[in-house]
Amino acid sequence: MINFSEIEQAHQRIKSFINETPVLQSKRLNRWLGHDIYFKAECLQKIGAFKARGGCNAVQVLRENQNKIKRVVANSSGNHGQAVAWAAAQFNIPATIYMPSFASKVKAQATKSYGAEVVLLDRRQEVDAAVEAAAQEEGVFWIPPFNDDAVIAGQGTAAMEALQKIDNGIDAVFAPCGGGGLISGTLVATRELQATAQVIAAEPLAGNDAYLSYQSGNIQALTEAPNTLADGAMTLSIGEKTFAHIKRLDDFYVVAEAPMVYWTQWLQHLLKLHVEPTSAMVMDGVCQWLRKQKSSQKILVILSGGNVDAAMMQRVWHQDCLTSEPSIERFC
Amino acid sequence: MINFSEIEQAHQRIKSFINETPVLQSKRLNRWLGHDIYFKAECLQKIGAFKARGGCNAVQVLRENQNKIKRVVANSSGNHGQAVAWAAAQFNIPATIYMPSFASKVKAQATKSYGAEVVLLDRRQEVDAAVEAAAQEEGVFWIPPFNDDAVIAGQGTAAMEALQKIDNGIDAVFAPCGGGGLISGTLVATRELQATAQVIAAEPLAGNDAYLSYQSGNIQALTEAPNTLADGAMTLSIGEKTFAHIKRLDDFYVVAEAPMVYWTQWLQHLLKLHVEPTSAMVMDGVCQWLRKQKSSQKILVILSGGNVDAAMMQRVWHQDCLTSEPSIERFC
Repeated sequence: MINFSEIEQAHQRIKSFINETPVLQSKRLNRWLGHDIYFKAECLQKIGAFKARGGCNAVQVLRENQNKIKRVVANSSGNHGQAVAWAAAQFNIPATIYMPSFASKVKAQATKSYGAEVVLLDRRQEVDAAVEAAAQEEGVFWIPPFNDDAVIAGQGTAAMEALQKIDNGIDAVFAPCGGGGLISGTLVATRELQATAQVIAAEPLAGNDAYLSYQSGNIQALTEAPNTLADGAMTLSIGEKTFAHIKRLDDFYVVAEAPMVYWTQWLQHLLKLHVEPTSAMVMDGVCQWLRKQKSSQKILVILSGGNVDAAMMQRVWHQDCLTSEPSIERFC
Repeated sequence: MINFSEIEQAHQRIKSFINETPVLQSKRLNRWLGHDIYFKAECLQKIGAFKARGGCNAVQVLRENQNKIKRVVANSSGNHGQAVAWAAAQFNIPATIYMPSFASKVKAQATKSYGAEVVLLDRRQEVDAAVEAAAQEEGVFWIPPFNDDAVIAGQGTAAMEALQKIDNGIDAVFAPCGGGGLISGTLVATRELQATAQVIAAEPLAGNDAYLSYQSGNIQALTEAPNTLADGAMTLSIGEKTFAHIKRLDDFYVVAEAPMVYWTQWLQHLLKLHVEPTSAMVMDGVCQWLRKQKSSQKILVILSGGNVDAAMMQRVWHQDCLTSEPSIERFC
């Protein structure tokens, strides 16, 4: 398991490549909810998501450990593919990203725009098989999406930057959980920098494998991709490395689709950021937790990203959720 | 007419109240268009729009000139009302904002959240009559939306901040034109800080009164509110004070609704900002101008704001415009 010094080392490696994203607040939201919430805006990160951090660190660790890198490869229908494409381009390393053909066109387009070769295959199983076959070749290296120390350390730099910027006294840090890379890195950074703060994950109810793993003490896997707007948290299963961290979380909430839509609208409206449902989902976890607190709390939320295609924007804005002021009781 | 020193004074007055908003770029957009575009993100300004600048300066100029201010009043269906409500609250001055009842509920809600009294009236004529009547009372002062030196000077601070931050060599500065406050202040700031740069306005085709005024040399007015997504540029007519500046612009473009939708999607997607169509509209003006240029250009775009209600988000994302990469030829 990684420790904080590996997050610090990751930050040294990646800081000249990534954006130090801003930490934002909405005074109106704070007034309405009666709590003090800080948002780390990773939607303003390179490639539009925190994944640039882990991808960039993993590629650099690979360069430190391997003499001859012919190519890096990754399998992804989303932000990880873009992150590896972008990170490889920083070091002039060729990259091939294997994607399912049902992935949104705009994500394939973005991945290509970073200079990577994109291979579209019909089924997810074919994608996984293709990347495994490619990585058999000498000099070709697979960059894993989350179950990897270099990736986890990279993702932890987001919470590290935020906690070093905010005055002391954070009561809780929240992040979404897909494969668990972000929440694992967030946990390690927070335990070091704000030892009294709780670290809490949120996951879609429709794909609650990490929640069930956390509750049962054993990794639980989904058998098929969940139907959820939180497309950054559709992973079928967390990994051994991320589970070792996830076990130690202070709390874990699952979120239904309706509050996810509601908070995506409200965060876009109040923060003026194009946040994705996977990020906004966390606010429902925040509210579930706040309903149990007796006093005003100071909270950090890691907003994972802002890669939303047109079909998802239509689903998010299909109805109007902005008609009444937000409250922590809204969905209880 | 104001000069640059009035913009500098305005900045001294307002800088501790407003956000110094970031200047952002999209490398992908620059690569696709073949030009170098900087965006001043006023959607991240207080109240979600540049209007906070002019409102804050006007309220402070009023305080410098008047001993006894009982109340400030404004008539607005949009960002100006929020700006006056917010600015008055900074100095504990009571504010009443008169709004047409057809204005979106979310804007009335935001205006109230800044502590102002909101009076809803059925028709725009009633709104205008009510604010005029209110301002007859001693100690009650009307804050005009654009045709006012203090307001124009305040709006000019956005371009001033951006031009002081960017290295020299800007070829053109673009801003939207509603009543003309923003483009007027932008013109004065740019002539001082980047004398060789062109200053260019964009306005919706459906409400092209300022364009016709610019072309004809006389103020032209619309007879009814235009039907356009650019709700920040629906003003029936510019004023004498803003026209004095607008006359001196280097160029002026009108924009149809389709490119407005297209660029709102693309800017939200690429910049990860919740920009309003009034802001994104400007990109079509940029493309119209770029089609006439022979070499690569360096451009500053003032993104006016990000106050978009759910109904407008539905209209913006009704179709998918992200299917092919943006190009300056797209709408020619």
